[in-house]
Amino acid sequence: MARRPFGTPLDIANGVVSLAHGAGGRATAQLIDALFARHWHNEWLAQQEDATVLPALAEGMVPVVSTDLHVVTPLFFPGGDIGTLAVNGTVNDLAVRGATPKYLTIGVLLEEGLPLATLERVVQNVAAAAAAAGVAIVAGDTKVVERGKGDGLYLAVTGVGVAPATQTWGARAIQPGDHVLVSGTLGDHGIAIMAARQAVPLATPVESDCAALTPLIAAMRETGAPIRAMRDLTRGGLAAAANEMAQVANVGMVFEEAAIPVRDEVAGACEFLGIEPWHLANEGIVLVVCPPEASEPLLAAMRAHPLGRNAARIGTVVADEHAFVQLRTPFGGMRLLDWLHADPLPRIC
Amino acid sequence: MARRPFGTPLDIANGVVSLAHGAGGRATAQLIDALFARHWHNEWLAQQEDATVLPALAEGMVPVVSTDLHVVTPLFFPGGDIGTLAVNGTVNDLAVRGATPKYLTIGVLLEEGLPLATLERVVQNVAAAAAAAGVAIVAGDTKVVERGKGDGLYLAVTGVGVAPATQTWGARAIQPGDHVLVSGTLGDHGIAIMAARQAVPLATPVESDCAALTPLIAAMRETGAPIRAMRDLTRGGLAAAANEMAQVANVGMVFEEAAIPVRDEVAGACEFLGIEPWHLANEGIVLVVCPPEASEPLLAAMRAHPLGRNAARIGTVVADEHAFVQLRTPFGGMRLLDWLHADPLPRIC
Repeated sequence: MARRPFGTPLDIANGVVSLAHGAGGRATAQLIDALFARHWHNEWLAQQEDATVLPALAEGMVPVVSTDLHVVTPLFFPGGDIGTLAVNGTVNDLAVRGATPKYLTIGVLLEEGLPLATLERVVQNVAAAAAAAGVAIVAGDTKVVERGKGDGLYLAVTGVGVAPATQTWGARAIQPGDHVLVSGTLGDHGIAIMAARQAVPLATPVESDCAALTPLIAAMRETGAPIRAMRDLTRGGLAAAANEMAQVANVGMVFEEAAIPVRDEVAGACEFLGIEPWHLANEGIVLVVCPPEASEPLLAAMRAHPLGRNAARIGTVVADEHAFVQLRTPFGGMRLLDWLHADPLPRIC
Repeated sequence: MARRPFGTPLDIANGVVSLAHGAGGRATAQLIDALFARHWHNEWLAQQEDATVLPALAEGMVPVVSTDLHVVTPLFFPGGDIGTLAVNGTVNDLAVRGATPKYLTIGVLLEEGLPLATLERVVQNVAAAAAAAGVAIVAGDTKVVERGKGDGLYLAVTGVGVAPATQTWGARAIQPGDHVLVSGTLGDHGIAIMAARQAVPLATPVESDCAALTPLIAAMRETGAPIRAMRDLTRGGLAAAANEMAQVANVGMVFEEAAIPVRDEVAGACEFLGIEPWHLANEGIVLVVCPPEASEPLLAAMRAHPLGRNAARIGTVVADEHAFVQLRTPFGGMRLLDWLHADPLPRIC
């Protein structure tokens, strides 16, 4: 940034966010220079305009967009933090549509009194996650709300990716007979957050599965095997993702409970809490629907990748005008795998 | 939306936002169906996927993006509301870069306890402002935070527009000798919000100038007169916008105080409060820098448009390695038109 230096440097080690940092004056400019521009610098942010002009898309490509608000308590948890989560969550929403994530915009909503050192850790984690996922932060905004009108820090992330104009991944393509695959164990993120909030005593610690799914999805794409649709599992878990897909496609789904991968410690925590792992959030697990002949090559590609080692085929699409999602228990009984009205525990992502 | 109906319809007239509405389960889906999808419906939102695939850009066009967080108290004020403000603010950030705004993504951060009727009014106002500005809402997200962790409602809006790849508006193009124009009176929005918060007694009511600047800017473009750069005046006012531009371009600016348009009632309120109108926010006023020969045709185009009736030439760009922005008073004295460290009054946009 070419701005002339300000009188007093920002005291990141000891300072806190004040209302002045959101007022659009010198204090705002100083915060932007000392934190956001420093850690997120790139040629797009350096335009320093009200909007950022991006390069033309390659011939035959279309833009793909997604947006997410991130509110999580605590801000830092085993396996991740709100910054990493925010970047990966948006990257994943683009990747499951078959897009290559390219650009992010980030709005940072700060509560007065947040230590600047905490903010800097999040800003650094955002930068690291963006670099790892190959995306550039091209625009941002900062607002500060009065003490008691926020929860430290909320992030609003919008992603822009590119996809071939001919790409057709989407739930509308799903057909009866299709197979349903999942890339790994359910509920790790949900239990990690609950444990960090001290709601669950765990003998073995559980880490969030928070990860950018782009390389895993690229590996699947490279098989050339046809893919109908994908969803990354987030709040609402497998149950919400499967029910959303089933309703859009107007089909039913039958899942095999015995085939659903769940870590022992997550299963134990679920039993303790009286909840089911298919209602818990993940942040780096993808649900894939594909024609039957594609499931073996796709599973092989997933299992060969660090993010998909525990991949499994867990269900089948069936004709069902009611769009019911069902679970076959290990004893052969069937029950509805319904989505919950609310969360098993409040606000974990 | 093709979703099957939920058991109990949402009671918009009497209900309030609950944590369940943000949990990603049935309650979230119900809120989306009954409010967002109903009022914002279009072919893009109807994709119902984690990310939205947009059409290819026309030959020779590039994408332009901008993002904004909107926090304003009160949510409704004379001349606008948070929803109208959020749409117009993002549309304006794109328009001042020479882009045609096309798509918006909207993140809605709700505080537990917000009346659903209040949310519906905002959602309707967003829809009306988007329709007026010719933009479609193509993706969204909803999160709910616990009572006391928000302020009713925050909006995170990202805009995607298109501009000719050859377009070059931007502060870096500014040259000494350029003229500086403003499209209307300063500070109307700021004083309207302060009055709505009962901080200012006004004999004559002041309405926010909140408006989409796209048609005004299109009228200016149609003159064919060259334009160097534009900024819409928001928080920080003329002072912040001018100082930002001056620093990016590494030039000075001299404004003529007597030429700056200010409504009598705004001037009176400023005197009462001991603040200056150039530090106050607008939400529908554009600052334009152009070569000297362009200022007459651009002023004529602005004055012929309802949004630019009070347009005026207010300043000149000068060579200045310190990038100082100065104000010539009616008595011929010069003083720094500096940006404030903070806001004259906290958090009005």
